[in-house]
Amino acid sequence: MDLKLDAAAVEALIRDGLVAAGRGGMAIEELRSGYARIRLPFSPLMIRPGNVISGPTLFTAADTAMYALVLGHLGPELMAVTSDMNLRFLAKAAPGDVIGEASFLKLGRRLAVMEAKMSTSAAPGVTVAHATGSYALPSRAD
Amino acid sequence: MDLKLDAAAVEALIRDGLVAAGRGGMAIEELRSGYARIRLPFSPLMIRPGNVISGPTLFTAADTAMYALVLGHLGPELMAVTSDMNLRFLAKAAPGDVIGEASFLKLGRRLAVMEAKMSTSAAPGVTVAHATGSYALPSRAD
Amino acid sequence: MDLKLDAAAVEALIRDGLVAAGRGGMAIEELRSGYARIRLPFSPLMIRPGNVISGPTLFTAADTAMYALVLGHLGPELMAVTSDMNLRFLAKAAPGDVIGEASFLKLGRRLAVMEAKMSTSAAPGVTVAHATGSYALPSRAD
Amino acid sequence: MDLKLDAAAVEALIRDGLVAAGRGGMAIEELRSGYARIRLPFSPLMIRPGNVISGPTLFTAADTAMYALVLGHLGPELMAVTSDMNLRFLAKAAPGDVIGEASFLKLGRRLAVMEAKMSTSAAPGVTVAHATGSYALPSRAD
Repeated sequence: MDLKLDAAAVEALIRDGLVAAGRGGMAIEELRSGYARIRLPFSPLMIRPGNVISGPTLFTAADTAMYALVLGHLGPELMAVTSDMNLRFLAKAAPGDVIGEASFLKLGRRLAVMEAKMSTSAAPGVTVAHATGSYALPSRAD
Repeated sequence: MDLKLDAAAVEALIRDGLVAAGRGGMAIEELRSGYARIRLPFSPLMIRPGNVISGPTLFTAADTAMYALVLGHLGPELMAVTSDMNLRFLAKAAPGDVIGEASFLKLGRRLAVMEAKMSTSAAPGVTVAHATGSYALPSRAD
Repeated sequence: MDLKLDAAAVEALIRDGLVAAGRGGMAIEELRSGYARIRLPFSPLMIRPGNVISGPTLFTAADTAMYALVLGHLGPELMAVTSDMNLRFLAKAAPGDVIGEASFLKLGRRLAVMEAKMSTSAAPGVTVAHATGSYALPSRAD
Repeated sequence: MDLKLDAAAVEALIRDGLVAAGRGGMAIEELRSGYARIRLPFSPLMIRPGNVISGPTLFTAADTAMYALVLGHLGPELMAVTSDMNLRFLAKAAPGDVIGEASFLKLGRRLAVMEAKMSTSAAPGVTVAHATGSYALPSRAD
């Protein structure tokens, strides 16, 4: 799988478009063939009762990592849209930066299916949530 | 199914606990046996590219409606935790207040399984996203 | 939503194609705009330990009901393919015929998203499993 | 994670209990800490239109692999029950034996969350379907 954009280009695209993500300074830490890792810097707004990272924040990390992966491989002119997301919460997510790592299960002509693992900087390497999701891809002229 | 808390009590609990939700003025519009409807007032932070409501916002609406439903039926002393969420995006969500309506598929002793439908005030009655999810329920002394 | 095939035509198509389903005498009991109900006659092969209907049987009922719904609305020339299925088991399914009822969450140009509820003739009206699923639709000439 | 049963013991348990699986001669090929691989020998009943392995067969492979993994780690006295299953179909599954490989995402006190990858002997190493699922675990006396 060839990349069409590098990490900086994808990060700029997402920051420009996504008000919420841009505000928090989302960073794409790594983007290579078949893999993307993003980081959402910690903010007190991410916390839910029990002093853990909230579900919507973990969803955001999954969706952002998958979106970065798709953008990197398809390029900016293609508007991919999340079709569905299945998110499983595995452990309490201690406060810290939230990391999302996405990889492809399938990159088809019309559908990209991905997996994402979320962790926080408070416990590196501990997967606190797991997601699979699919993005509908726009028709391509080829 | 009997309620243990009414809408105002559940709303106060969620507002107190959830910084993010409280900021936006989340409201529980209806809470009755087996059903909850919540509203997230529109904010520009909800928008994603294409001028539609973002996925994380729709996730928040699903999760908040389900959490309100569980709290209402189980009472405040029980800390229910989202176990998994399956979210399907059905249509572009035009900007407006986001409404989430949750109902039970199952209220078991250890697991609550729920369904939620999301819409926005820009197109009342049009379901823009559908979710099913389960919450792990704490052990009860009975 | 207009139907392109009636129940008998869809049943014949599925029986012809699907060896396993045909063997068991799957029946389409109702097919109307936006709704399909199918029945899998009871067989001892459906039972799993604990004397309950097995998960694969409930999956089959969900998938068959959704496939019948899609076929009825799109017609026979279109080969729809299951893209994903999310299945939740809600209660023990007492032995009996297995009924699946499917309805659309969305019938798009490229994706059909459906919901299905499963029950058995041993406890009519009791939903023992709930499913949501999506089918990829082939390109249409329009 | 320690095993409480080896592959042969788990295979005997599943064969004894599960009529359908026993008939087909399901085999547990490998069972070690955190991992199980099962094989469903090819049968013409597995085929659906288009000469591909059917969805219910892939579901069976996922569920059997996960069940074997849970049984191996928890032992025979514990009756684990599938709570939900999310199955994604990634590629046409060419006819052959169906292999399911399961691993843990989480083995909690009350819930086991697993991932499974399915392939067929016609194309070793090609994942044709991916699943995540959770099993409710019975209360343990400790």
